[in-house]
Amino acid sequence: MSYRELLSKDSYWMRDEEIPIVLSTRIRLARNLTDSTFPQDVNEEEALRIEEKITAILADYILEGERLHYLALNKLTDIEKRVLIEKHLISPGFPELGVARGVAVSESHKVSIMVNEEDHLRIQVLLPGNNLWEALRLAGMIDDYLEERLDIAYKDKFGYLTSCPTNVGTGLRVSVMVHLPALVRTNQVQKVLGALAPLGLAVRGLYGEGSRAFGNIFQVSNQITLGKSEEDTLTHLEAVIRQLVEHELQAREVLKIEAPLITQDKLWRARGVLENARLLTSDETFTLLSEDRLGIDMGILPKANAGFVSLLVNSLQGCLQYKISRPLDGHFVNFERANFLRQVYASASTHQT
Amino acid sequence: MSYRELLSKDSYWMRDEEIPIVLSTRIRLARNLTDSTFPQDVNEEEALRIEEKITAILADYILEGERLHYLALNKLTDIEKRVLIEKHLISPGFPELGVARGVAVSESHKVSIMVNEEDHLRIQVLLPGNNLWEALRLAGMIDDYLEERLDIAYKDKFGYLTSCPTNVGTGLRVSVMVHLPALVRTNQVQKVLGALAPLGLAVRGLYGEGSRAFGNIFQVSNQITLGKSEEDTLTHLEAVIRQLVEHELQAREVLKIEAPLITQDKLWRARGVLENARLLTSDETFTLLSEDRLGIDMGILPKANAGFVSLLVNSLQGCLQYKISRPLDGHFVNFERANFLRQVYASASTHQT
Repeated sequence: MSYRELLSKDSYWMRDEEIPIVLSTRIRLARNLTDSTFPQDVNEEEALRIEEKITAILADYILEGERLHYLALNKLTDIEKRVLIEKHLISPGFPELGVARGVAVSESHKVSIMVNEEDHLRIQVLLPGNNLWEALRLAGMIDDYLEERLDIAYKDKFGYLTSCPTNVGTGLRVSVMVHLPALVRTNQVQKVLGALAPLGLAVRGLYGEGSRAFGNIFQVSNQITLGKSEEDTLTHLEAVIRQLVEHELQAREVLKIEAPLITQDKLWRARGVLENARLLTSDETFTLLSEDRLGIDMGILPKANAGFVSLLVNSLQGCLQYKISRPLDGHFVNFERANFLRQVYASASTHQT
Repeated sequence: MSYRELLSKDSYWMRDEEIPIVLSTRIRLARNLTDSTFPQDVNEEEALRIEEKITAILADYILEGERLHYLALNKLTDIEKRVLIEKHLISPGFPELGVARGVAVSESHKVSIMVNEEDHLRIQVLLPGNNLWEALRLAGMIDDYLEERLDIAYKDKFGYLTSCPTNVGTGLRVSVMVHLPALVRTNQVQKVLGALAPLGLAVRGLYGEGSRAFGNIFQVSNQITLGKSEEDTLTHLEAVIRQLVEHELQAREVLKIEAPLITQDKLWRARGVLENARLLTSDETFTLLSEDRLGIDMGILPKANAGFVSLLVNSLQGCLQYKISRPLDGHFVNFERANFLRQVYASASTHQT
């Protein structure tokens, strides 16, 4: 697989799953080498030695038939790095960290392993839909492979040692991306999500800490990594997600029963704009795609020609620029975004009357 | 022609003409009988006598092959009266004036003659597009027919005597309906139309005095009826209209050259809403239809399946209610309006990309 093919393809986690509300699952394990300084204090020479040691081991690794391709950040253009961020294969701040940084990506993008990010190793598994246990299984396999070949920092009393104390213990972060448009529309989302913090869960937007909840999409993840097993963490999150889905489905019933015409009108208008606009900002696009997806889920709109998450990610600036192979300024990004979406939607709608 | 057919049909003036900016022309002559009190002071008995005298004469009248049908207001439902107002066949305040009022309407709706409105006779000719002289010719023929058979109040020094002194003289009001969306969009309309008052011209919205300029449509009409011949009035108005058209066309060029993408985006979105909305207020509808028509005129949007003025009038509450034969409250009017427009637009657009 060429390096351009690898970057251009839709990530596995961007697929549409049957379950309409839980969009995707991500598991991340933070790991560090015993004999090395943590990445934030490392000098260039040592960073390079760490990178070399890890990539040598990853080069031979085949996970369930898939090879990993290592992408050194200093060999990538700004647009390429942006594509990796948009596809969740690297974290947003990663490209700023300096030399000897990179990411090993599997062909399906199910696995991405960042080298010399906040920790020496950040193992990520990204799957579509609600797939906590499968993600944990894959992450565990990778972890086992690496632990057999590297000295990983671990203390019996604490667990895995990490650069940031909030990750000490399991080093595990599980994030689930949920689409809650009806809870937003019925003004219940603050209340419902506000109840999660006391349960040790964090809520963020689509692109990590501090990012706004564009497109009515929220990432729910565990905060606690110390004193709780991986299995307990997943079981707990799973129960919470089940409740969130229940609340969202109830809110959709409320919309259907109490405001059927207003809801239909709103959702059909979103489809109409996606089919017709010539300029679309990314903010508006996220809102429209969210409404469009809600309309499809509720049986109001005909299915679109592409999946929700795929459309969201591919309409981001990096992916748009990468596709046409040149940088674009604001106005022309909005133009290309509208063109992209119009082509997708042109033949989707049957215009029932 | 049945009385329901007469009310249901599109008025001749609602047709689309080749000229895109001047939508329609109306001429009105105010006339009164010499031996009778003006309508505002008349008692019921005298009003009935006047109505009888006039309708007897109109019953025999055939204007270029067309008969006139007399509709007594007290025999009409509220919805029917509303349809007459929306089609400009009677004035908005006419139904409130009391008994012995009515209107004689020709089959094409080119001619409507109100009896016992502000004056005993209000002769109206309504034509599509820019048709001042043809309208004057028809109005003159009707006026001649009536003057041969009735004693019309006329004084050599003043001209025709009318109930309101502003009409004394020719008793002529010429109104031209113009569509000026690009002047509105480029913020020039106030300046351009503001220059008309000193020229003795009034500017109003689509539904007469005090009505707002919905849909970027303005009625320009003469204010002066005394000391100026019919021909001078028309020549003067014609020159002004020619200038307005010129200004609007220039403003459209400005939009095309200076903001092509923003303009295309705006106009395609309007089309998208017309094709998809499930609820439309009349305010929004007028704006959308105006944008849609501008898009068609500018060659940006494919032609719609019905004319602009016809869509405007038929999406008004009275016409919508008359079509489905029952009164509708706000929410359901908006629903029926959206259904009506969606059916018109469903197959119009080719979704070019």
